[in-house]
Amino acid sequence: MARILQLDQTPEVVTVQIEGVGVRRFHALWLRDNSFDSATRSPVNGQRLVTINDIDQATTIANCEQSSDGSAISVTFSPCGTSSRFPIDWLLHHSYDIDRPTRKGWLPQTVRTWTSSTSVRELPRVSWSAMSNDDSALCHWLSGVRQMGVGIVTDMPTSPKFLCTMARRFGYVRETNYGECFDVRAEVTPSNLAYTNLGLQAHTDNPYRDPVPTMQILACLENSVDGGESTVIDAFSVAQALRDAEPGCFELLTTYPVRFAFEGTADVSLHAKRPIIELGPDGELIAVRFNNRSTAPFRDIPFNVMPDFYRAYRAFAAYVDDPRFAIEFKLAPGEAFIVDNLRVMHARRAFSGSGRRWLQGCYVDRDGLESTLRVLEGS
Amino acid sequence: MARILQLDQTPEVVTVQIEGVGVRRFHALWLRDNSFDSATRSPVNGQRLVTINDIDQATTIANCEQSSDGSAISVTFSPCGTSSRFPIDWLLHHSYDIDRPTRKGWLPQTVRTWTSSTSVRELPRVSWSAMSNDDSALCHWLSGVRQMGVGIVTDMPTSPKFLCTMARRFGYVRETNYGECFDVRAEVTPSNLAYTNLGLQAHTDNPYRDPVPTMQILACLENSVDGGESTVIDAFSVAQALRDAEPGCFELLTTYPVRFAFEGTADVSLHAKRPIIELGPDGELIAVRFNNRSTAPFRDIPFNVMPDFYRAYRAFAAYVDDPRFAIEFKLAPGEAFIVDNLRVMHARRAFSGSGRRWLQGCYVDRDGLESTLRVLEGS
Repeated sequence: MARILQLDQTPEVVTVQIEGVGVRRFHALWLRDNSFDSATRSPVNGQRLVTINDIDQATTIANCEQSSDGSAISVTFSPCGTSSRFPIDWLLHHSYDIDRPTRKGWLPQTVRTWTSSTSVRELPRVSWSAMSNDDSALCHWLSGVRQMGVGIVTDMPTSPKFLCTMARRFGYVRETNYGECFDVRAEVTPSNLAYTNLGLQAHTDNPYRDPVPTMQILACLENSVDGGESTVIDAFSVAQALRDAEPGCFELLTTYPVRFAFEGTADVSLHAKRPIIELGPDGELIAVRFNNRSTAPFRDIPFNVMPDFYRAYRAFAAYVDDPRFAIEFKLAPGEAFIVDNLRVMHARRAFSGSGRRWLQGCYVDRDGLESTLRVLEGS
Repeated sequence: MARILQLDQTPEVVTVQIEGVGVRRFHALWLRDNSFDSATRSPVNGQRLVTINDIDQATTIANCEQSSDGSAISVTFSPCGTSSRFPIDWLLHHSYDIDRPTRKGWLPQTVRTWTSSTSVRELPRVSWSAMSNDDSALCHWLSGVRQMGVGIVTDMPTSPKFLCTMARRFGYVRETNYGECFDVRAEVTPSNLAYTNLGLQAHTDNPYRDPVPTMQILACLENSVDGGESTVIDAFSVAQALRDAEPGCFELLTTYPVRFAFEGTADVSLHAKRPIIELGPDGELIAVRFNNRSTAPFRDIPFNVMPDFYRAYRAFAAYVDDPRFAIEFKLAPGEAFIVDNLRVMHARRAFSGSGRRWLQGCYVDRDGLESTLRVLEGS
């Protein structure tokens, strides 16, 4: 528990010196906006009951004192007279008077990037029985998935659509034109090249969709062919490697959006416009979209920039194909993997021979997974 | 049909002068990447069969000629020897040798912004019977929804969950922690302030979710209370008005992400970090997220910027509350409205009295709606 060493105030700013941390400052209006009193936030559901313009813009600190054990402060505001207690731990967690990363393409500390030097055995792995029966095993696995953007589930029943049951253990299935889940196996008239025995370059799924599915699960029901190995690649590692080696290429791929499209059957026409490497407004690396099969003609890049953009695109693609980023494994029946589809690409090798390869895929969204994880972490 | 007036080429660039349009240039590598030959694109599903680095980076134009009616060009590339035909209409649609908007917050021509001077009768409106039985009525309505970000459906059955049936006419329901659909009515222990009789400031739904649901449907089953009117607001109009009047405020709200959170029940913990006004990397206005109830403490804004950020936030909120942007109506049983949840805010007035108000809501995604529309437009 964090503890106050010293507390100072002006009408506009509270300054807290926290043991072992340093100084953190908070504005009167920020504190007022985030007050915990029952007229500001509903005690039932924690939602804010007031709008920002319900709060006087000339709000100041009328009084501020610390609790006897130094673990909280109590603030009274003027002119509204509202009082609220703020635990120091809470203030520390929500501090904004801090240093921030400034280099474009930065990642939060919760992200652990990886390359081929990470072995498949180091990927988060859980059996279906542990995942379904043991909350702490589920929590541990989900935490690994959040950190690495990929995870493996073993010992699943190989019954069709079981992956949807698995997905519902931590989230919600996103139904699309492919159905709630879809079969990935060689077909005579494939609506998508995934439904052939061709190798597929590493890609993120459905970049022609907006919002793109944020997680994908691929579960193996049969896999007795020659080939058909799966590969996962941390596209955040790829993007940062490109940034470090060829900053101009990184800049181009973050600055200009591209187009993606899918019209594999007559009843579908999906189009999206997004950059290959997406940064938040603060420069955080938040998504990669890459899929050679469904990249549509670039048309948001000025004529004079196009040659350089292609050079950047080729450079990125060369990194994607570079074995130094790839972790390869062959799914056995009853095994599945999940990827953060904004971060981790997947690929497969071509397959052939007399056997059969039957995967099923489905999409889920990261918000549900992360919500489940936070609840488990807090319980 | 567009027609060629003149065709010129160098090894690197094809220059086409198009009747009534002007000059458009295309690079050899761009044309090669987008070739339609059956070794480059699958004739079965239109997906690209090659990766970008399968194409020689020194690709040049070996030969280029126009069709006798001037409606297409045929290009042969060196060194690969591949040939492809490109219709002029296709080249025109995918031109990148064009002028582009440069002012931040621009919108594509497909977007028609609106304010309170648009009457509720001008909003896209369709009856359930027309929507369900008549593809052209559905197409017309969806086209209006794409343009204005809002639409109304009338004469729906008032049976519970019927809105999901309606949603499936053009898209896919996104299931969340609130279920496939959810009841919006006053409850004794509301997990969300929506489930009270309080007024709700105009907001976009679930900004604490990432990806945020891109469309929301609210359908009315009962509405005999006093009050409870619904309001819709084009947040793109609001954002552009702010940009024009107070560019510094607009800049701040697009530059810094904020946080949103929802923990209304013990089994949910949803957190997201996104800007209030989101621009694409090319400055296109692509989303607004605004919800006083679930805005979490700002902590991605430097201490010295925070006072100005709050000024910008207050200015935006004042615009949101300004009646000059709002269209108000009272839903009757059997009526529903849909909003583009990245663009159109909705609000409701407080209600009271002896009657009952029962809405049901569900989320769908825009990609499915737009796909259905494109297919209908093309058929």
